[in-house]
Amino acid sequence: MNVSMVRYFLGKVIAIVGILMLLPFAVALIYKEHNGIYFLIVALSCVALGEIMSLKKVKNNAFGLKEGCIATGLSWIALSVFGCLPFVLSEQIPSFTDALFETVSGFTTTGASILSDVEHLDKCMIFWRSFTHWIGGMGVLVFLLAIIPSTGGSNLNLMKAESPGPSVGKLVPKIKTSAMLLYKIYIGITITEIIFLLFGGFDLFEAATMSFGTAGTGGFGILNDSCVSYNIYCQWVLTIFMILFGINFNFYFFMLFKQFKKALGMEEVKYYLFIIIGSIAMITANIYHMCADIGDAISKSAFQVASIITTTGFSSTDFDKWPTFSKTLLVCLMFCGACAGSTGGGIKVSRLITWARTVLKELNSYIHPRGIKKVRVDGKIVEHEVIRSINVYYATFTSVFVLSLLLVSLENYDFTTNFTAVAATINNIGPGLSLVGPTCNFGFFNAFSKYVFIFDMLAGRLELFPMLMLFHPAVYKDLFKSIKKH
Amino acid sequence: MNVSMVRYFLGKVIAIVGILMLLPFAVALIYKEHNGIYFLIVALSCVALGEIMSLKKVKNNAFGLKEGCIATGLSWIALSVFGCLPFVLSEQIPSFTDALFETVSGFTTTGASILSDVEHLDKCMIFWRSFTHWIGGMGVLVFLLAIIPSTGGSNLNLMKAESPGPSVGKLVPKIKTSAMLLYKIYIGITITEIIFLLFGGFDLFEAATMSFGTAGTGGFGILNDSCVSYNIYCQWVLTIFMILFGINFNFYFFMLFKQFKKALGMEEVKYYLFIIIGSIAMITANIYHMCADIGDAISKSAFQVASIITTTGFSSTDFDKWPTFSKTLLVCLMFCGACAGSTGGGIKVSRLITWARTVLKELNSYIHPRGIKKVRVDGKIVEHEVIRSINVYYATFTSVFVLSLLLVSLENYDFTTNFTAVAATINNIGPGLSLVGPTCNFGFFNAFSKYVFIFDMLAGRLELFPMLMLFHPAVYKDLFKSIKKH
Repeated sequence: MNVSMVRYFLGKVIAIVGILMLLPFAVALIYKEHNGIYFLIVALSCVALGEIMSLKKVKNNAFGLKEGCIATGLSWIALSVFGCLPFVLSEQIPSFTDALFETVSGFTTTGASILSDVEHLDKCMIFWRSFTHWIGGMGVLVFLLAIIPSTGGSNLNLMKAESPGPSVGKLVPKIKTSAMLLYKIYIGITITEIIFLLFGGFDLFEAATMSFGTAGTGGFGILNDSCVSYNIYCQWVLTIFMILFGINFNFYFFMLFKQFKKALGMEEVKYYLFIIIGSIAMITANIYHMCADIGDAISKSAFQVASIITTTGFSSTDFDKWPTFSKTLLVCLMFCGACAGSTGGGIKVSRLITWARTVLKELNSYIHPRGIKKVRVDGKIVEHEVIRSINVYYATFTSVFVLSLLLVSLENYDFTTNFTAVAATINNIGPGLSLVGPTCNFGFFNAFSKYVFIFDMLAGRLELFPMLMLFHPAVYKDLFKSIKKH
Repeated sequence: MNVSMVRYFLGKVIAIVGILMLLPFAVALIYKEHNGIYFLIVALSCVALGEIMSLKKVKNNAFGLKEGCIATGLSWIALSVFGCLPFVLSEQIPSFTDALFETVSGFTTTGASILSDVEHLDKCMIFWRSFTHWIGGMGVLVFLLAIIPSTGGSNLNLMKAESPGPSVGKLVPKIKTSAMLLYKIYIGITITEIIFLLFGGFDLFEAATMSFGTAGTGGFGILNDSCVSYNIYCQWVLTIFMILFGINFNFYFFMLFKQFKKALGMEEVKYYLFIIIGSIAMITANIYHMCADIGDAISKSAFQVASIITTTGFSSTDFDKWPTFSKTLLVCLMFCGACAGSTGGGIKVSRLITWARTVLKELNSYIHPRGIKKVRVDGKIVEHEVIRSINVYYATFTSVFVLSLLLVSLENYDFTTNFTAVAATINNIGPGLSLVGPTCNFGFFNAFSKYVFIFDMLAGRLELFPMLMLFHPAVYKDLFKSIKKH
């Protein structure tokens, strides 16, 4: 393994976290919060440590899939550990485990919180908490790729390991240009949302933090009731932008380059919108009797469907009180997830399309045993290798899910709580049902369960393999070999 | 489609159900129950109808996978409809839906009941109810193949469609011999169990019915408390025989032909026993504080693990009161299921082994991108086609599961009830948790949900495709075409 390359990258990532922390420090200056000093301290330490780690230039910049996975996994752990330090040092979240949980939940855009009282935090802390969503949504390595000089063609492996979904990174031939384009689109839509929210009566701080939470499909709110007390205009703005951030970014890319036919022809986007509209209709019918009128029912179900399918996790009402059908449908949407190549988590619509077509193909093969039909998406044949990798992904996902469920169930909370808590963390959503419902938080779990959730959030965000690789014995063999050599 | 061949087979199956019903009629004669007359009436009607349907000899006995699936699906529906008539006519179960549910639950070896008071039934009804388990366990078509003259080499497709698990039917080159061998082993172990139970103080009626329930891995008990009031000896006999009936029948075949090395080398059997022992150990530790002593804890956990992993569904205690970890583990075992080629349901251990190896292979491919390794089971390379079909099976299973969960959740019972009710029916287990726990029954669901469960039980027993095929439009096109032609 190319250990020095991994070290170099890790250093760069830590330095970047430091630089990004200057933003909450600035917020602290504006609001005259003395806890802001901790951001400065950690920021400077990170930059120093990062620069030392990446001081030694790397001769061999060959970067395989293995290095990509390891670098990504370690980067995200480093990101979270350094990112949580201001919470701990300022004692705004005194427990390290809790602070780490909150930060991982932020970076992985999960939005599950251990805090029962968010409003109690300093503004700079709330800002950093929401800002981690925005950073984590597009990915810090993608950011790195966008700004550092290219180190050869092998960076695709990094981007592959970090990006949510199977199809990012092929927008333009050059990775660096791709990464920059992605960030430009990302920033553009975020700013648009901020402007829309400002019109709804938000101040800049509110508009920015809530937009960060939407953009990363994160879900940390800045009020204790999430979005319940916002006016209907703002709730609809959030609904629409949640849906927009769940769309495959290739769509915006095509729109930007005026390839409208290609954009509008994307099957994944069509099915994504179709699932959303269908779910809204069904839930509206199901909760109608509990709502003031049809408009109220539609806006509540639209908000929640958008929030869950994009794995954001905001709530405009306590959906744990909804009828079982609506709750079950939401749990299904948790697994469904948004489009590949968006900032959302979950299994992703494109995988489900391929999957459904494989099943239909099998049924048809019983009818016409000799007819060989290929699975197609967007008119293109889906390669056997892609189908295989989707199946492996799914098998791995289930394994991690079942193991986590068993470990968490040692704590003896009810099945619905455990099941939806694991579902909400591994799919990077946030709230679940029962004890982890939208009005509750994850604070009551013990440290062991919290670390299980931390692993699930990271594994879910990085699409499993980078995190699982860290447990592979061969990786440590490589590491020791390389350390011995030096 | 070869419609006349399907008609011919269907007739044979209906006739056989008639003949088998003479057994409960005999029981009624012994116990002098006048309701036995309904068995005679239905039996004679079935034989008459069946003979008329299969009167016209079939010229073309070509029987493809499509015909195999359709014939199997329809046979099982016919089996259940005719099988439930004595319950309805005698008004022992007055509602047709309830009686159908109970009969499907019997034939599919599920063991979920709508009855709150089993002991209230006539002995002949209880006998028939348990006997359906025994028939359904090995499969009525396999029985048919064992006794009717061979109609060419294409019967493998029938056996493939009906047998639980992917590997039955290749024991010896000739299908008929295979089917007869399977039934001989099946009868042999059943009789052994009856003898062991007689030693435990059971009378012949009790020993026979409980052995039918074990052999088919069914789970209908003959007492309202299932197996709670049995003595410890009988509980252990049941435990051991449940485990034995969950073993791949190839194992017994090899033993019978003195191929001990092959038998003991079967990886599936080893993992199956390993999972059982591991689960018993974990549950024992988890429930120890609730039990009288360690022996009590071991026998309770062993009974329940054996009952759930083999998808039998007997209970020796109310495991719904156990800690969440034990309950969650049992839910996982529900999906795991027994060995392929046994009478048990679920996903099957062999599929899970292949599946786990595919995941490990993927992880290794990240470490050694150029090393091409094949997935092996029992030292043999698993063909790509097998892996593909396991993945398709799994995808289909999940789709049916999710759809059923949504449909059932329309009734507004809690998530745990719905989730475990669907899991317990599609995996042919019987009891679930919460409202469908071991001390409860399925009677409270409405007719719509009951039909969903009926479909799930049949789909689970026939490994999905034969039942799904019945919904394929092409099948009806074929049917109309063929009717027109005649």
